[in-house]
Amino acid sequence: MSKVITPRNEDYSKWYLDVATEAGLAENSPVRGCMIIKPYGFAIWENMRDTLDARFKATGHVNASFPLLIPKSFLSKEADHIEGFAKECAVVTHYRLKKDPNGKGVIVDPEAKLEEELIIRPTSETIIWNTYRNWIRSYRDLPILINQWANVMRWEMRTRLFLRTAEFHWQEGHTAHATAAEAVTETVLMLNEYANFMENHMAIPVIKGVKTPNERFAGAVDTYCVEALMQDGKALQMGTSHFLGQNFAKAFDVKFTTKEGTEEYAWATSWGSSTRMIGGLIMTHSDDEGLILPPKLAPIQVVIVPIINKNTKERLPEIEQIVANLKAALPNARIKYDDDDNRTSGFKFAEYELKGVPLRIAIGARDLDNNTCELSRRDTREKQICTIDSLPQIIAQLLIDIQQNLFDRALAYRTAHTTRVDTWDEFVKTLNEKTGFVYAHWDGTSETEDAIKEATNATIRCIPLDNPLEDGTCIFSGKPSTQRVLFARSY
Amino acid sequence: MSKVITPRNEDYSKWYLDVATEAGLAENSPVRGCMIIKPYGFAIWENMRDTLDARFKATGHVNASFPLLIPKSFLSKEADHIEGFAKECAVVTHYRLKKDPNGKGVIVDPEAKLEEELIIRPTSETIIWNTYRNWIRSYRDLPILINQWANVMRWEMRTRLFLRTAEFHWQEGHTAHATAAEAVTETVLMLNEYANFMENHMAIPVIKGVKTPNERFAGAVDTYCVEALMQDGKALQMGTSHFLGQNFAKAFDVKFTTKEGTEEYAWATSWGSSTRMIGGLIMTHSDDEGLILPPKLAPIQVVIVPIINKNTKERLPEIEQIVANLKAALPNARIKYDDDDNRTSGFKFAEYELKGVPLRIAIGARDLDNNTCELSRRDTREKQICTIDSLPQIIAQLLIDIQQNLFDRALAYRTAHTTRVDTWDEFVKTLNEKTGFVYAHWDGTSETEDAIKEATNATIRCIPLDNPLEDGTCIFSGKPSTQRVLFARSY
Repeated sequence: MSKVITPRNEDYSKWYLDVATEAGLAENSPVRGCMIIKPYGFAIWENMRDTLDARFKATGHVNASFPLLIPKSFLSKEADHIEGFAKECAVVTHYRLKKDPNGKGVIVDPEAKLEEELIIRPTSETIIWNTYRNWIRSYRDLPILINQWANVMRWEMRTRLFLRTAEFHWQEGHTAHATAAEAVTETVLMLNEYANFMENHMAIPVIKGVKTPNERFAGAVDTYCVEALMQDGKALQMGTSHFLGQNFAKAFDVKFTTKEGTEEYAWATSWGSSTRMIGGLIMTHSDDEGLILPPKLAPIQVVIVPIINKNTKERLPEIEQIVANLKAALPNARIKYDDDDNRTSGFKFAEYELKGVPLRIAIGARDLDNNTCELSRRDTREKQICTIDSLPQIIAQLLIDIQQNLFDRALAYRTAHTTRVDTWDEFVKTLNEKTGFVYAHWDGTSETEDAIKEATNATIRCIPLDNPLEDGTCIFSGKPSTQRVLFARSY
Repeated sequence: MSKVITPRNEDYSKWYLDVATEAGLAENSPVRGCMIIKPYGFAIWENMRDTLDARFKATGHVNASFPLLIPKSFLSKEADHIEGFAKECAVVTHYRLKKDPNGKGVIVDPEAKLEEELIIRPTSETIIWNTYRNWIRSYRDLPILINQWANVMRWEMRTRLFLRTAEFHWQEGHTAHATAAEAVTETVLMLNEYANFMENHMAIPVIKGVKTPNERFAGAVDTYCVEALMQDGKALQMGTSHFLGQNFAKAFDVKFTTKEGTEEYAWATSWGSSTRMIGGLIMTHSDDEGLILPPKLAPIQVVIVPIINKNTKERLPEIEQIVANLKAALPNARIKYDDDDNRTSGFKFAEYELKGVPLRIAIGARDLDNNTCELSRRDTREKQICTIDSLPQIIAQLLIDIQQNLFDRALAYRTAHTTRVDTWDEFVKTLNEKTGFVYAHWDGTSETEDAIKEATNATIRCIPLDNPLEDGTCIFSGKPSTQRVLFARSY
């Protein structure tokens, strides 16, 4: 089975695509850039979504639903926003089909043309702030802390499963506040929620930081982000949280009466994380045998495969009893028993390895005689024989250990691929040979940032939140700099 | 506060709209026919969705995600399907905007025209069966039991919040089977899941039945449905489950190798329920004071309002302790404590009544002295004084009682508004004066069904599943009939 996966060192992009498709996560659809998320991939997304959703609710947010379609004129109201999104919009122009009078099939009915075209939302700031205008009158109406789980569409030219698709699933939080300080606090709070989720559930270490003006969200005053390092040494932006200032309140005329009786525009944040995170999950942990999933997000945490042939079939009820006992002992564990006799146990082993199931248990007739079983870890591929009675304790501990090991491994990789450089030659050499994150001094100008990107294809991923100030000279311009920033090539 | 709701007997449609908007469930958006589901309305939908989703999973289904957009040509592949849906499609024709060279704002970039137009899914049979072609090779690949929670779009001309909107949220199950019998079993299984959910969670009695050919889903062999009766005597179709035969398998060439080695087209079902159910929830239970929610779906089951003025403010910690104890005693109850001192308790009482919160508890300083509180039921508007110590037991029981009372009330209304008639005059008179469900004989022809609809605006809601056979004559044509069918005017 493992032959289906192209090795990473042969073709990393092909490896990624092989893992995503062969593990049954997703596939391309006949609609350009729109993927089909298959049940196994969607189950991972459900686990991610449920975990994040619980955190959003615990921090006072509620869910709502705003329209899929946005009037074209709304996009133009915030000047930067339209610049950022106009180039990649799916546009609805008509609302009816009719039979083709000249043949088979159907054509767009020219009589059913919309007066104003509608855009499939690339993000919902405009339609939401147009709505908030009616919801916000007084400081008593604030804060508004709303999140939406939704599908959005950006007409990307080059797409890749999960990482960059035309349609994707995400959550977008849109909050309104009475003061700038409160909005900034919210922006950082949600950034921290993302970072905690990624580190504690996805087992992916992330760097929290602020984007440079060049890389800001279209319409934001400040864009905060979490950046992770993939196994090919490229960075992946895993989520963003924006302080929008009063930009959208001004564009949509959202004013409120303050406690003091004055009138002010509301302050905004928005924050989003998407199915792109699944791409990060694949690229951080998986290997040439297939997917590796952290236990907290794995749809199946433990799979039990009976090794039974025609001669030992009468022992199956004993194994079923072991499974039942195990499920009773670990009611919160996601345990699958695979007794499908259309497939060999060898086939099953390879398949669950490909699908990244953290723990596999094999039990045969001789195991039953000995009251033992064989337990395999997906992350280290280590096997051990253990007694049936000790299974609940061992599994509970191993699920914790695997989660931690995946994080530690990813952190070690990142540490080994993070370099401080002081010269342009070192910078280029590191990017080309060692790859990874590079901390270097930058003079703070967009021109230099553009020139570095032009020359190396590396961008400033962020200015880390906890960045120490340090005098130095820009690697490109030689001008004075007060801090190193985080460079990398990226997805 | 209750003045904002138009009484039912004055203008039922206005009453419905008032309840939906004033209770904070939803509002219209600037995009024609697309609603904004507000947090309180969305919380009801989340409770409905979570309950249904758990049942779908318990019956072996898994979730997945298919594209929002469908190539125009796909719709034409199933002849009936295109007839049913072409007239109400949102059509994407372009993928880019550009700056208007003649002025401000943006225009559709004529250079970014799609080769083939894309339709926003009105339902997903076509894109899903096109996908299943690659997933189904052998009987071993069957059954496929997939559900999708999604937004879909049908360009309705007359829209009404929840009941009929251009964009709506729903779930659509799409299953593939090796035999017709297995697919029919699945169709009926899911119909029963819908009926159980509606009766046990929504507290709405439903009639399960089969649609006549006139009312079938476009592309189905048989459409099963659950029909409920609203307080204005009109029927609401609450959900449908379709046996699609081999229609979509043939349209998309989905064949499999049977156990015997022959090749056959796969058998299909699809089944859906939507945010429309929230419209049914409003119309079944609510009154002139506002929304009434069954406890199992209410986002807030119990609200506690402290009756405290400036002189008794020091007693607030005592009430907070009571709330904490109650939450500890009833960890699964959704309890809200509203100590917002910007609003009077009278305002709060009216608001939670409007929002349909099943139980309200008021506690003042004198109550604290007496170790009592005032408990109000939303459904009967009855009040009782009870001791603080007895609250957990009383609340737990009342939530059960209210759930049952709402169902009983709805069933009593339906029973009182269900009539058996034998003549055309009785039929018309019943529809016009008594309203409700009418059981009458029908000759089984589409022509008669059309003529009855034309004359009375009543349709055959369904042929109930447990319908007794009974000789009679058609109320319209006088021709012989073997059973009564269920007529009503409907939404």
